Amino acid sequence: MATAFDPHVGLAWIERVGAGGRERVRDDLAVEEPLEIRIDGAALAVTMRTPGEDEELAVGFLAGEGLIAGRDDVPAVGPSDDLAANVVDVRTRRGLRRDPSGERRFYLTSSCGVCGKGALEFVRGAAPPAGSRAAPLSPEAVLAVPESARRAQRAFERTGGLHATALFGSDGVPVVVREDVGRHNAMDKALGALLLEGRYPAPAEGLYACLSGRASFELVQKASMAGLLGLVAVGAPSTLAVELARERGLLLCGFVRGESFNVYAGADLLAG
Amino acid sequence: MATAFDPHVGLAWIERVGAGGRERVRDDLAVEEPLEIRIDGAALAVTMRTPGEDEELAVGFLAGEGLIAGRDDVPAVGPSDDLAANVVDVRTRRGLRRDPSGERRFYLTSSCGVCGKGALEFVRGAAPPAGSRAAPLSPEAVLAVPESARRAQRAFERTGGLHATALFGSDGVPVVVREDVGRHNAMDKALGALLLEGRYPAPAEGLYACLSGRASFELVQKASMAGLLGLVAVGAPSTLAVELARERGLLLCGFVRGESFNVYAGADLLAG
Repeated sequence: MATAFDPHVGLAWIERVGAGGRERVRDDLAVEEPLEIRIDGAALAVTMRTPGEDEELAVGFLAGEGLIAGRDDVPAVGPSDDLAANVVDVRTRRGLRRDPSGERRFYLTSSCGVCGKGALEFVRGAAPPAGSRAAPLSPEAVLAVPESARRAQRAFERTGGLHATALFGSDGVPVVVREDVGRHNAMDKALGALLLEGRYPAPAEGLYACLSGRASFELVQKASMAGLLGLVAVGAPSTLAVELARERGLLLCGFVRGESFNVYAGADLLAG
Repeated sequence: MATAFDPHVGLAWIERVGAGGRERVRDDLAVEEPLEIRIDGAALAVTMRTPGEDEELAVGFLAGEGLIAGRDDVPAVGPSDDLAANVVDVRTRRGLRRDPSGERRFYLTSSCGVCGKGALEFVRGAAPPAGSRAAPLSPEAVLAVPESARRAQRAFERTGGLHATALFGSDGVPVVVREDVGRHNAMDKALGALLLEGRYPAPAEGLYACLSGRASFELVQKASMAGLLGLVAVGAPSTLAVELARERGLLLCGFVRGESFNVYAGADLLAG
């Protein structure tokens, strides 16, 4: 059967080994390539990602780091002028430019040095005020959304090698679904898609994120910076993810499997 | 029942929601905290990790990036002199110091700019020659090692939130198992443990790595830099992970589940 071209999926001949012996088969693989993100022409970061939504990934990443606050800060975003492959350049309104000395160095400016407390303080200072609490989620919506998101994940079905982030409202219906070999990238793409539509921070009616994997500190940070109401993760959260969600008043559900799940933070946003 | 203290595990009161209603329970969480890695006193990177094996993580990370080549390059490694929490300083023999301008910038020095080909070229130039091919793995060992590694993963059993890397020989018995919230960190810790024992690159009798999750380019890079013979992953590999394993002659198995698995590269290292 012919399959539609999908930039997220590559093909390879491989060997399958099973009880019946070894056979040569054609297999679908998740594509991984480096991407350089530039801000106003200056290289900021290189990330390994699945190609296809590079502009979304770039602006979502910058917004999560607090370097841009919304659509108005980004007059232009696109491939680099010099035609280099795998380079995306974000032009900012105010000529914002990040300290190029390294990754996540902002922890070092905190009063307590490199620690979880410093990481929490960064988000406290940079994130928008928490959104309206008027859009609670029902337990039924929490249980249903991972499967709804997975149905929208076309490349995962073929490769089994991609993480997804879905954004959804209190009705549990996904409005944006993005995939990537990296779970942080999937979140950046989903939030970047919102931003490019002029809906960042998230609209007042309230949005949540569904994660196909675990919930790390950085994923909760990105959600908080975007003004989301909470996160629903198929996997486990970390200690620092729970601390940040509690401090920011976000709903954080994890281990959403079958008929049950855990609530780690923000239980007041769970209806019933 | 009393539980032994484990620095990888934190405790929290959470709410469990299921068919029987909602109840408040005490839960184990995987610990996540930032760590700053310094080389000869200069900050190089900040990573979010699970505390407990910081020295291993730091030297494993530096070796994977080609900044140190073995135990002799590291006269001392330990907490920073200034007593800051979550800082590990690696003192190097030759006063090696990395270009502090950012993460993974070496791609930019490649002739083709930022691309998969540049990433492959970096490893080609920096990795040791491939090891002996005299230690092939049996399909039975491939199928058995994820479960053996998991039995050794104490904190995962409690939290469900940790990745693991196990190093094992052709008999399929794990010799080093390390856990972390980040799968790259788990690999760095396992390889760093080898290095601190003076066994990096890996000994001539041959070692493989078992990964609890997916196989990315960077994990294959770390294995190649360490002179491992191959990788056995429970999850899927990416396109670039397969390309690098093929170029370096590494065995790469994926989707090791139940009675079957896939071989993406290095099938000559699979016995039978």
